[in-house]
Amino acid sequence: MIILSKEDIEKLVDPDKMMDQIEEAYKIFGSGEYYMPPRPSVEHDNKTLMYMPCYTKEIIGTKMLTIFPDNAKLGLPSIDGIILLNNAVTGAPEAVMDGQSVTAWRTGAVGGVGIRHLSRKDCHTVGIVGAGVQGFHQAIYACAARDIRSIYIFNHSGRDLADYMDRLEKAIDNPGTKVVQCKTVEELTAKSDIICTTTPSTEPVLPDDKELLRGKCIIAIGSYTPKMREIPDAVWDLVDKVYIELPYACEECGDLSQPIKEGRLTSDKIVLMSDYLASKEEEADTGKTTYFKSVGMGLFDVCIAQKILEEAKER
Amino acid sequence: MIILSKEDIEKLVDPDKMMDQIEEAYKIFGSGEYYMPPRPSVEHDNKTLMYMPCYTKEIIGTKMLTIFPDNAKLGLPSIDGIILLNNAVTGAPEAVMDGQSVTAWRTGAVGGVGIRHLSRKDCHTVGIVGAGVQGFHQAIYACAARDIRSIYIFNHSGRDLADYMDRLEKAIDNPGTKVVQCKTVEELTAKSDIICTTTPSTEPVLPDDKELLRGKCIIAIGSYTPKMREIPDAVWDLVDKVYIELPYACEECGDLSQPIKEGRLTSDKIVLMSDYLASKEEEADTGKTTYFKSVGMGLFDVCIAQKILEEAKER
Repeated sequence: MIILSKEDIEKLVDPDKMMDQIEEAYKIFGSGEYYMPPRPSVEHDNKTLMYMPCYTKEIIGTKMLTIFPDNAKLGLPSIDGIILLNNAVTGAPEAVMDGQSVTAWRTGAVGGVGIRHLSRKDCHTVGIVGAGVQGFHQAIYACAARDIRSIYIFNHSGRDLADYMDRLEKAIDNPGTKVVQCKTVEELTAKSDIICTTTPSTEPVLPDDKELLRGKCIIAIGSYTPKMREIPDAVWDLVDKVYIELPYACEECGDLSQPIKEGRLTSDKIVLMSDYLASKEEEADTGKTTYFKSVGMGLFDVCIAQKILEEAKER
Repeated sequence: MIILSKEDIEKLVDPDKMMDQIEEAYKIFGSGEYYMPPRPSVEHDNKTLMYMPCYTKEIIGTKMLTIFPDNAKLGLPSIDGIILLNNAVTGAPEAVMDGQSVTAWRTGAVGGVGIRHLSRKDCHTVGIVGAGVQGFHQAIYACAARDIRSIYIFNHSGRDLADYMDRLEKAIDNPGTKVVQCKTVEELTAKSDIICTTTPSTEPVLPDDKELLRGKCIIAIGSYTPKMREIPDAVWDLVDKVYIELPYACEECGDLSQPIKEGRLTSDKIVLMSDYLASKEEEADTGKTTYFKSVGMGLFDVCIAQKILEEAKER
């Protein structure tokens, strides 16, 4: 059995390969050749164990999460976990990986695939709202997907991001790419071709202003419960289509469920990313405002973990 | 995170400490200070993933099993797995261990505690029915619990057990203890003070003969579904009490459910091992026939894994 820590995974991931693997995962999703049942979970004393199993023809995986909200009192993340990969034929355990790290790299890769196929090829700027782990990885993947020269960061807390920006510049390791902190989200929106929202907000984090948002590629990562919302209503006047990963997202996250409930977003606008990628259509260079909302799914975790395991075996 | 393979675990387990830990687990069971919910499982294409979570005050654990019956066609065990331990306060993953190995050592330890408290202290012989992994570990624990001079082995297939017996002698590593293969189960029963049944049989594997079984300490490990049965009806004429781990065992295994259905075993005879151990009563030296039926539980896995982790940290 191969064990991969956060540090091991850092050394193994290549953002381009990870995005390619997410595109493979969309093909598997489109073909229906996978089994991703509802996620069993147990809870005791406000401590939840959640199991996210997914079977593909090539591998079987389970992301096992601990969701301990009281960790916030200790200054620790409330979600931790591992990913277990089992042989698809025999069930033998093949690998255990740090779950936080795989989740961060897979979520970034999913956003990155959105950027690959929904942003103009000549985009040189990306704005990241929310200076956390997800924002960090979205910035890395934006730079892999496009020739990014400026990364704009905005964090609602207003805290000093010098350390964060320093780490990000080192991770991107390209003297042609600068990281800049914005004082307002309006400034970030005005300056960025691509905007990634990565917050746990329950109120829209982008300005509700059609003119500011027009022509942007918006990648929304943060909202994953019906109460959470990052995207303002102005977006619905600008986009023809909303790209999502799986139909269930429309119930799961407020960025979709709230506008659907209010009648601002209608089902004819909703397109599965797997269908869009299979269709060979390209919205990227039409100059339109584009919007991709990600909630993630176990299939992505398993495919990304499988790819990381392959990379580990090759080295 | 600490990772322990089968080989690591072999080096860390001390049978006496493991039995002490099972007695601790019975205390936790008796106190009710644990949470062991129904085991979630998912199944696809005759491939089952089963999650066995258990919370104690000190640790949270999940045994994750793969149950792939088609493995038999490949000559592989159908059940494999890992045990994950999480910090009881923060949920952080603390250890991953080989599941087959922890299961074998915990099941052996549970049988060993039965031998400690239900067999005469001057027992010098043990009979093992079923020459598999469980039989192997029951023999090791019998030698830890009592001063065993002869281990009698019987296997229904009649295959040559020379290699198995050789490995067992090496594992026990005591020139005063001999391993002997019996040609019949009657011979084994007659010669053994303690008898451990460790088969997946659906028919009784011991002789249905009161005189042969009288005064023996019987430890039944094999049956874990209502169709499986190892113990003959003659036992019900000999024993005053049946010792079990948890009430659910009466539904789960044929060794209890079948005689209950037939009216041979009545609920007044059934005693929880945790109650017996807490009561300080001792049936061991009364000369009575004694019977312990084990089906196992997640609480034991978690407590044994916790102890193995402690041993690993000390070294």
